[in-house]
Amino acid sequence: MPYERNNIQALSAYTPGEQPQSTQRVIKLNTNENPYPPIEPVMEAIRALPAESLRKYPSPAAMNFRKIAAQVHEVSPDQIIATNGGDELLRLAISVFCEPRTSQSSRGGIGVVEPSYSLYPVLAAAHDTSVTSVPLNADYSLPDDLEQKMLAAGVNVLLLVNPHAPSGALIPLRRLDRIASQLQGKAVLLIDEAYVDFATQDCLPLVQKSSGLDNVLLLRTMSKGYSLAGLRFGYGIGSANLIAAMDKARDSYNTDALSQVAAAAALDYRHLAAHSWAKVIQQRERMTSELSRRKWHVFPSQSNFILVIPPPKPDGESASRRGTGTETALSGDAKTPTAKTIYEYLKAHNILVRYFDHEGLRDKLRITIGTPEENDAVLAALDELHS
Amino acid sequence: MPYERNNIQALSAYTPGEQPQSTQRVIKLNTNENPYPPIEPVMEAIRALPAESLRKYPSPAAMNFRKIAAQVHEVSPDQIIATNGGDELLRLAISVFCEPRTSQSSRGGIGVVEPSYSLYPVLAAAHDTSVTSVPLNADYSLPDDLEQKMLAAGVNVLLLVNPHAPSGALIPLRRLDRIASQLQGKAVLLIDEAYVDFATQDCLPLVQKSSGLDNVLLLRTMSKGYSLAGLRFGYGIGSANLIAAMDKARDSYNTDALSQVAAAAALDYRHLAAHSWAKVIQQRERMTSELSRRKWHVFPSQSNFILVIPPPKPDGESASRRGTGTETALSGDAKTPTAKTIYEYLKAHNILVRYFDHEGLRDKLRITIGTPEENDAVLAALDELHS
Repeated sequence: MPYERNNIQALSAYTPGEQPQSTQRVIKLNTNENPYPPIEPVMEAIRALPAESLRKYPSPAAMNFRKIAAQVHEVSPDQIIATNGGDELLRLAISVFCEPRTSQSSRGGIGVVEPSYSLYPVLAAAHDTSVTSVPLNADYSLPDDLEQKMLAAGVNVLLLVNPHAPSGALIPLRRLDRIASQLQGKAVLLIDEAYVDFATQDCLPLVQKSSGLDNVLLLRTMSKGYSLAGLRFGYGIGSANLIAAMDKARDSYNTDALSQVAAAAALDYRHLAAHSWAKVIQQRERMTSELSRRKWHVFPSQSNFILVIPPPKPDGESASRRGTGTETALSGDAKTPTAKTIYEYLKAHNILVRYFDHEGLRDKLRITIGTPEENDAVLAALDELHS
Repeated sequence: MPYERNNIQALSAYTPGEQPQSTQRVIKLNTNENPYPPIEPVMEAIRALPAESLRKYPSPAAMNFRKIAAQVHEVSPDQIIATNGGDELLRLAISVFCEPRTSQSSRGGIGVVEPSYSLYPVLAAAHDTSVTSVPLNADYSLPDDLEQKMLAAGVNVLLLVNPHAPSGALIPLRRLDRIASQLQGKAVLLIDEAYVDFATQDCLPLVQKSSGLDNVLLLRTMSKGYSLAGLRFGYGIGSANLIAAMDKARDSYNTDALSQVAAAAALDYRHLAAHSWAKVIQQRERMTSELSRRKWHVFPSQSNFILVIPPPKPDGESASRRGTGTETALSGDAKTPTAKTIYEYLKAHNILVRYFDHEGLRDKLRITIGTPEENDAVLAALDELHS
C-alpha cells in the first residue's frame, strides 16, 4: 500500500528543462537563463560572508533584504516576502489562498490561461485544488471574458505571467488593474513578473498603496534579470494582508544567509545588472529581425526569449498565409523540418532550445536570447539546415 | 474579507529562538547551533563556486550530493532527498503523507509526543491536518502504549525526534524498530535525527534494505553537526518509495547551487566536523557535572544541549526530593530564582538560553553547549546569581 495521498500518487511532477551536466560545450537556450554572468558585487557578497553567518541561523524573515527591496520598489517592508526561488512563492500562495477540493465541491482553486507556465497546474495538483483554464487568443492576448469566467468558477487565485511565457506578450497595466478590481474581495491576482526586467512595463502601481487594491501579489525572481538561477531566491510584493498570511505559513527559515546577502547586493547594484538587460533586449530585437527575414514567424516579445514558428513549405498554402512566400531558405526537395525535428537537429549540434509537447505549441520553439556569439551560432545552424 | 484559508487565519506561526542582530557580543546558547565554525573545505567550496554555476539553474534533485550521501550512509541515491533545511523535509512529509481534516473525519494526520519540537503541530495546522499527542514519561522516555494510541488515531506520520528535544534523551534502536514494524502498511515513522551527530546511536539500520521496513524516514540536517544553520540544507534518508513520493511534490529546484556544493563538502570532510562533535560532547559532560554539583537537575543528554531544572529552595521539600540538599548556592533570604527569572537574568548579562512557556517546561531551561569559554561564562553568571 502506498503511504502518499491519492493526489500525490496521481501527480506528474513538473519536468524542468534539460540541464546538461556534461563538460561538453553546450549552447543552452532552453531555460531562459540570462546569458551574462552575475554582477561582481553579488559574487563579492557571497565570498565575503563570514563563516560565523553560516554557523548561526539566518534572519528568519530576511529583514535586511526586505528593507532594501521595499526601498527599491517604493512599498513598505511588510509588503515584501523573500522566498526560496519564485517557485516557493507560487506554492505558498496556492497553499495559503486556495481551498482544496472536497467530495462536495470542486469550486475554488487556481485560474490559469492556456498556454502558460506548466508548473502552475502541477502545484495545484500537489495541493489537491482545482484548475480553471481559459484559452488565450491566438496572439496570446487575454480574452475579454476572462474575469467573468474566473469569477464564475470561484477561483481563489488567478495566475498570470506577465510578460507572458512562452510567448513574451505583455498584458497592459490598465487591463490588469481592471481584472484586480473585479476580483477584489473574491480572489487574489498573482502576477508572475519573472521576466519583468526585460519589459517596458511593470505592475508595481497595482501594489502601491494608492492603488486601493488589497488582492494583488507580484512575483519577482533573481533567476532571470540578475543571472542567479542557481541561487534560488525570489520574492513577493503585495498588499500587507496577503504577505502576512504567507509569512505565517512559510518554512521558518526559508531563505539562507548566502542568498540573502547576494540578493541584497543584486538589488543594491541593479544598475549594473541593467547592462545585461539592455544587451539581451538588443539581441532579442536582432533575433526577431533575423528570423523574420528567414520567414520564421516571431511573436513580439518583451522577455528574454522568443516564441517562433519555423518557415512553412515554400509553395504550400500555409506559406501564402504567412507572408510573401516568394523566397525561402528551405530546399524544395527535403521534407519540411518541423519544430520538433529542428529542436532535435539543434540538439545534435549542441544547441538546446525548448520544444513543448503541448496542444497549440507543437509547431513552435521557444528560444532563449543568448550572447551575440550564441545567437550567431543558432542562426548559422539554421542556415545550414535550410540550405 | 481575508483571502487566506481558515486554517491559515487561525494559525499561530512557529516562534524561532531569538536571533540578536545587534553587534553587541552575545553568548548565544538558545538555538542549538554548533559553537565551532564550519570546517574550512565547506567555506572553500562556497568561495570556489564559479559565477557560471549561479547563472544557470542548479541540479534539480541535487544528484551529486545524493550520490555522496548514499555512499556515506550505505544506501542507494534513490533513498536520499535533499531539502531546503530539515524544515522543508518535515513540511513535505506532512503534505505528502497526511490526509487533511474533512468535515466528516479528523482521523489521520501526525502523531507527536509531548513535549517535542514545537514546529510539528504548526506544520500540521498549516496543512489543516490533525495532531494526536501522547505525553512522554517523566524521564522523557516513550510510554509503552505509544504505538497502540497512534494506530487507534489512524495517524499517517508519527514524528519522533531522536535524540529527543528538548531533553536530549535517546530512544533505543530496538524500540524504534518495533514501532516501525507495528506501523508498517499504516503509517510513516519519521525520525528527526537533527542532533544525531552528538549521540552514540543512529537509526540507519532501519532504512537499510536489510531492515525489511518500507515506512521509515530519517531527517538529517547540516545545521547542527556541521555548523551550517545559515545554509539551510537538510536531507531525508528513507525507503525509496517514500523518497519518490516526496521527490514529486517538492519545489522543482528546492536546493541551490551553493548549498549543494557546501553540503557535499561537509559530508566528504565529515571527519573534520567530527572534531567539533567530540569537543561538544566533552563540554556537555562537563556542564552536566558542574551543574549537578551546584544542585541543578540535569537530564541525561545525547545531544548538543541540556535540559536543566534550577536548584530547589535550600530547605524546602523539593530540595529533599532532589538530593542531599545540605548545601546550596542559593542565598536563604532572596526569593528562589525560577527558571524564568534565571533566563531573564542571563539575558540581561548577554547570555541567551531557551525558556519555554509550555506546560511541563516552565520550571526548566534548555542550554545549548557552547565553547569552554562560553560555558565558563554561564557557570560564572549562575554562581554570581546564587552567591
